[in-house]
Amino acid sequence: MKAIGVRDGAGQAELMEIPKPDPEAGEALVRTLRVGVDGTDHEVIAGSHGGSPEGEEFLVLGHEAVGVVEDPNGTEFEVGDVVVPTVRRPPNGPNRYFDNEEPDMAPEGQYHERGIVGAHGFMAEYFTSPASKLVSVPPALAEHGFLVEPISITEKAVEHADASRSAFEWAPESALVLGNGSLGLLTLAMFEGRFDRTYCLGRRERPDPTIDIIESLGSTYVNSTETPIPEIPDVYEAPDLIYEATGYAKHPFEAIEALAPNGVAALLGVPSNWKFEIDGGTLHREIVLHNKAVVGSVNSNVRQFEAAVDSLAALSDSFLDALVTGIYGLDEFEAAFVDDDTTIKNAVQFSTYEER
Amino acid sequence: MKAIGVRDGAGQAELMEIPKPDPEAGEALVRTLRVGVDGTDHEVIAGSHGGSPEGEEFLVLGHEAVGVVEDPNGTEFEVGDVVVPTVRRPPNGPNRYFDNEEPDMAPEGQYHERGIVGAHGFMAEYFTSPASKLVSVPPALAEHGFLVEPISITEKAVEHADASRSAFEWAPESALVLGNGSLGLLTLAMFEGRFDRTYCLGRRERPDPTIDIIESLGSTYVNSTETPIPEIPDVYEAPDLIYEATGYAKHPFEAIEALAPNGVAALLGVPSNWKFEIDGGTLHREIVLHNKAVVGSVNSNVRQFEAAVDSLAALSDSFLDALVTGIYGLDEFEAAFVDDDTTIKNAVQFSTYEER
Repeated sequence: MKAIGVRDGAGQAELMEIPKPDPEAGEALVRTLRVGVDGTDHEVIAGSHGGSPEGEEFLVLGHEAVGVVEDPNGTEFEVGDVVVPTVRRPPNGPNRYFDNEEPDMAPEGQYHERGIVGAHGFMAEYFTSPASKLVSVPPALAEHGFLVEPISITEKAVEHADASRSAFEWAPESALVLGNGSLGLLTLAMFEGRFDRTYCLGRRERPDPTIDIIESLGSTYVNSTETPIPEIPDVYEAPDLIYEATGYAKHPFEAIEALAPNGVAALLGVPSNWKFEIDGGTLHREIVLHNKAVVGSVNSNVRQFEAAVDSLAALSDSFLDALVTGIYGLDEFEAAFVDDDTTIKNAVQFSTYEER
Repeated sequence: MKAIGVRDGAGQAELMEIPKPDPEAGEALVRTLRVGVDGTDHEVIAGSHGGSPEGEEFLVLGHEAVGVVEDPNGTEFEVGDVVVPTVRRPPNGPNRYFDNEEPDMAPEGQYHERGIVGAHGFMAEYFTSPASKLVSVPPALAEHGFLVEPISITEKAVEHADASRSAFEWAPESALVLGNGSLGLLTLAMFEGRFDRTYCLGRRERPDPTIDIIESLGSTYVNSTETPIPEIPDVYEAPDLIYEATGYAKHPFEAIEALAPNGVAALLGVPSNWKFEIDGGTLHREIVLHNKAVVGSVNSNVRQFEAAVDSLAALSDSFLDALVTGIYGLDEFEAAFVDDDTTIKNAVQFSTYEER
């Protein structure tokens, strides 16, 4: 069957021929519909993140998948069920994080991530997965089901941020999303209705499709070159929640000061080493005297995937149409890996729901 | 009546004669038993923190008090009840934080703190307080009741730290307390039984009374000049919880790296401005990839005072005897404000429970 992968050191995705997998006991065989492309894929292709399975010299890409059950193989699924797979798998037998159904909390070395590190991904005509790691999706969401994984990332981050504020009556009114990539925009859309006022920080000038989306959501676009984070409290307001999806290493420290009293910063970016000066005394004092919190969040679990299915269902078609730049077939898969200012979210299409 | 206060700019505590207060409606009159002295008092005396009530040129000190109800004045208390007052009061009429019974979450400007900023403290022969801001203490705890306030500070910090880890199954085994002052030692004692292994960081050499206490609690003393925080994970282990009570501005940033995966740092210190270099990229990445959290915590509310009463009751007499360096009468009150390496915790005695 056809797959899209990256050979070690190649620096680009390529079409490959690999054997169609056989489901083992407890696993279902899934026919792939669509697989999204995100920044992690670009890092994996560039070789700056993740790695191939042990003993192999290539990695099948893809961790944002939606598919249709082709062979339930004795699991609880039925032929034709639309499913989304979670990403983490136990590396060498189970460990307590997988036993607890919280593989998202496993430390480095205690997980593989399909399509990222140690295990092949979902960018193939078929994949197998333990049924316990497949989440059901209503057929109506089959087209956009590849967005369940990124949405689940935000479900987890917000769950942890909310938990950190659960020891008192927190009444957040405003949120600032750092980053106008696809994850930032999905998060901003998820915040509609929850916050009275939202802001989204980016570095782009008008005209820009992401700015159009931000404003169509009723949110305020903040151009960081005009209004850097430290000026946001004065120009707009001090946000109750700051969601960081930039991977820009100064943002967490700027966020601590910009937050409203009792606010929380949820961090999701993964920057490289970078030394710089901060006023650590001011940050320390500010966290303490205003009861602030900072929470880091990575990956997501089945429960958060299930919440993401509901969140996806609540997003408007017009938002989703604007978010998804292109859906590309295998004959033009390279286009899905283009990452320029006109690209918000691409996916590769392997088959359609109707083909069943 | 006699009181201990500081005149603006005087830089030292002095004995004063002030009018005995009359309780207003909803307030009780309390005969003061003992009032503890802590680092905040030293900052207030030095003029680096807090300030006198508006229109006055002195501040009665003291925020760690225990007393006996002398006149219930129609409140739910009875003559002879042992009570501890909370510290924050609304500054100019109520606000939502006081309405929610969470004055500890009020931002700067929306509270006075008795004995610290904007309102006279409890270092006087009598004080009045709204009954809603008095917490009952069993008579058996009257002697050590002045420790309820500092213990409540830890109750709140740990409550917020636990809340931040409540979105998953957190099974902490080890805790590191930064600081071997009285708050650090009280916290270490409160952690007995909750954590399998505890560590306490200080800067002192043996022989030292705090090191004796740390070891009598079954905890491990870490001399920061021999083993700074970044080396603790290798020399001992990466702690699941780090409790910071030093006010040393580099500690939060060192703590983020030293924490175990999924760990939390609770910050309580209040440092001055201090610029220094950090590897912000590494810290940012570490928070995210290992789901870490940082929570700041200041002050405490009635519920946390009530929890502190239970915690105080659970502390051993031998620990409390070792912790309390001296109890000084009004004739030698200056001794209570000495702060040297032999002093752990002092209090001023205004009267005894038996005097009633």
